[in-house]
Amino acid sequence: MSKVISVVSRDVRFPTSLDLDGSDAVNVDPDYSAAYVLVTLDTGEEGHAFVFTCGRGNEIVTQAIDSYGQLLLGRDGDELVGNLGEASKRLVHDSQMRWLGPEKGVSQMACGALVNALWDIRARREGKPLWLLLSEMAPEELVDVVDFTHITDALTPDQALDILRRGQGGKAERIAELQAGGYPAYTTSPGWLGYSDEKLLRLSREAVADGFGMVKLKVGGSLEDDRRRLGLVRHELPQLPVAIDANQRWDVADAIEWVSALADFEPYWIEEPTSTDDILGHAAIRRGVAPTRVATGEAVHNRIMFKQLLQAGAIDVLQLDSTRVAGVNENVATLLLAARFGVPVCPHAGGVGLCELVQHFSFFDYAAVSTSQEGRFIEYVDHLHEHFAEPVRIAGGRYAAPQLPGNGAEMLLDSRLRWSYPDGAGWREVGDRAAVTEPHMTPAEV
Amino acid sequence: MSKVISVVSRDVRFPTSLDLDGSDAVNVDPDYSAAYVLVTLDTGEEGHAFVFTCGRGNEIVTQAIDSYGQLLLGRDGDELVGNLGEASKRLVHDSQMRWLGPEKGVSQMACGALVNALWDIRARREGKPLWLLLSEMAPEELVDVVDFTHITDALTPDQALDILRRGQGGKAERIAELQAGGYPAYTTSPGWLGYSDEKLLRLSREAVADGFGMVKLKVGGSLEDDRRRLGLVRHELPQLPVAIDANQRWDVADAIEWVSALADFEPYWIEEPTSTDDILGHAAIRRGVAPTRVATGEAVHNRIMFKQLLQAGAIDVLQLDSTRVAGVNENVATLLLAARFGVPVCPHAGGVGLCELVQHFSFFDYAAVSTSQEGRFIEYVDHLHEHFAEPVRIAGGRYAAPQLPGNGAEMLLDSRLRWSYPDGAGWREVGDRAAVTEPHMTPAEV
Repeated sequence: MSKVISVVSRDVRFPTSLDLDGSDAVNVDPDYSAAYVLVTLDTGEEGHAFVFTCGRGNEIVTQAIDSYGQLLLGRDGDELVGNLGEASKRLVHDSQMRWLGPEKGVSQMACGALVNALWDIRARREGKPLWLLLSEMAPEELVDVVDFTHITDALTPDQALDILRRGQGGKAERIAELQAGGYPAYTTSPGWLGYSDEKLLRLSREAVADGFGMVKLKVGGSLEDDRRRLGLVRHELPQLPVAIDANQRWDVADAIEWVSALADFEPYWIEEPTSTDDILGHAAIRRGVAPTRVATGEAVHNRIMFKQLLQAGAIDVLQLDSTRVAGVNENVATLLLAARFGVPVCPHAGGVGLCELVQHFSFFDYAAVSTSQEGRFIEYVDHLHEHFAEPVRIAGGRYAAPQLPGNGAEMLLDSRLRWSYPDGAGWREVGDRAAVTEPHMTPAEV
Repeated sequence: MSKVISVVSRDVRFPTSLDLDGSDAVNVDPDYSAAYVLVTLDTGEEGHAFVFTCGRGNEIVTQAIDSYGQLLLGRDGDELVGNLGEASKRLVHDSQMRWLGPEKGVSQMACGALVNALWDIRARREGKPLWLLLSEMAPEELVDVVDFTHITDALTPDQALDILRRGQGGKAERIAELQAGGYPAYTTSPGWLGYSDEKLLRLSREAVADGFGMVKLKVGGSLEDDRRRLGLVRHELPQLPVAIDANQRWDVADAIEWVSALADFEPYWIEEPTSTDDILGHAAIRRGVAPTRVATGEAVHNRIMFKQLLQAGAIDVLQLDSTRVAGVNENVATLLLAARFGVPVCPHAGGVGLCELVQHFSFFDYAAVSTSQEGRFIEYVDHLHEHFAEPVRIAGGRYAAPQLPGNGAEMLLDSRLRWSYPDGAGWREVGDRAAVTEPHMTPAEV
């Protein structure tokens, strides 16, 4: 028996809006941020996790983590870490707090961070990176961590068990293959809207030289610019697949029209063509822009929404995110749903720390769930990795397998302190550059 | 020109879990609460609003209100109140904070409270209750407050304008009719799961005597209990329509099976049979339980979800809620969507203050949007009204038209202070009754 003795959150923000890294048609000026949490047991064990946000409002998420953290304080750490399905339900289905979602937005993300911190403790106890812990768990134990509430019309526990049992065959070989050769990546680094054509092209050439299998361009600001930028890359690097990403910029009819106007450049997929809530809209867009693939997921708030995107035949590519949903458990549910429908998962990453976190799900997916890398890549963006205890390692356009025990969330203490908002030393230095904290509306709305 | 000089939130909670008022299959022990906000201009004008919650976590919503409030501080109050469409977009589409939803959960509800506080100032300026302000606004001005982002595939500004222009005919007569005779209500007061059969039957008889057109029973705890309770009311009061409400208790197949097992009692509607996010699930359930009507909405987080419920033919009754979405503007959008699809709106109320708020939307709907009361009632629950500046008035089973200028949210200052959590005098008195704050999981999950 052990005891949860503290749950401490911290508001960490990086002033990325100063450089327009991460600018797209909707997120014009993000300050990549982490609502960070450290869960400590009386054994001295620590679990790290965070929720990614775009800056303003990060303090709402730290408040939510503190509030949900009250449900863990004083509880038996062994019981929580030994039964992570139950631990997650205790947070997500709290009878009073459920109203705040249910299962969506700030409250869902805060639950996810706490669940992930418990998984971090579990993985450290077993001395394994999260992906390997998951890959080596028995199918029965994995099914126990999944919350099947409201998804049994698409995936029952028995069906999940079947998928995972099939995934046992050849698993050791696939784990060895991942350890040796990693997992394919694509890169979004060249394609931010704020970058010049010259920078776009230079970074795209570097992406090819670095062995990435695809690049992604942000679109949706101006059709003329989109045609020029997409044309430039496709003309200069004709063998390089190029995905495009509108970050929910369009209504349904606009999406079909705009994507059709880019069809001659054969984009590999169109990502987030419209509101992430719009299941029927995605289905209509997919029919309207075929054969261009439709992808979404980074802002999809729970397994029930993913279930419907799959049931409606609305997506070709499922892009789960590591800090949007209620943690590892819900992402395992989503991987199983995707496998059941035969849709490839290409996780969302970028921001700060999302690459470090999300890679674990693709490694696990290959080892034990879909057992395929066909049509699958993990997104890669090359900034802010230096702040983490185990930065992602990319070689030959592939993610190398994480090695350190844990879930990948641990940010260096120096970084956490320096970029604590608003009082960290880093923020005191940039504080006079007022643009960072000046509110804007998204261009779609101005 | 005027200026927003303060945005002050307050955590107000009532210890309703002590009496099991409001107990249902999912919300077993709510402490009805308000994340209250007061927006003050330098003219001395005040706007009141709140977000309803079930207790724990109310402090997350007050934090969110404070955070979004920063976007209003120092701004021109006349500009905000004069262009409420723009004011809403400035909050909802803030480029960094949008990530926290987008447009859902805690962040959406907080935006809604601030938007509603601005409407309160506007209505007080014009000396009208909100419903009358809305009813007397020109169609063009109403369309200007609606955010059509991501709904134009179902409702364009021109289509909205057509609906509102048609609603001009006979409007003055309907307003006079509402002033004289009010709007029909149904009551949920008899049907809480925590009540004995005797109390259920006594309160149902009182409901008939009081002239209510329908009662609603909570179901989903045990099928045997549901059959007994529903049978009892239907047998003793055969002329009284009885709706049932499962508060999202079931998966899709369970919902169809359970509701079918209650079909011989001819429930008027089944409310929230499954996850409020499950559009396709509601559509399947509606097909599976026909001719029993399917109703949902109190936890539907934005106009994009309502759009799809309507597009999918998933609901017979739309139950908008006054504090779940981004305020008056988004509820106007939802009323217009419902009118476009010909689906009656029967708003959700109860909790604390929800009756006081939501009545305005039905009065407006009748005066200027659907222009019908056919198959429409406002929910009524008879507790906690004494805390408001203008408590709802019910006569002959109908809501009387609110008279005081404003949106109906103003809670008496004494009540706000007494039930401030955790330091108000009321909470100091009940504080030793520990059951109030002890976390539980929902029975579905235990």
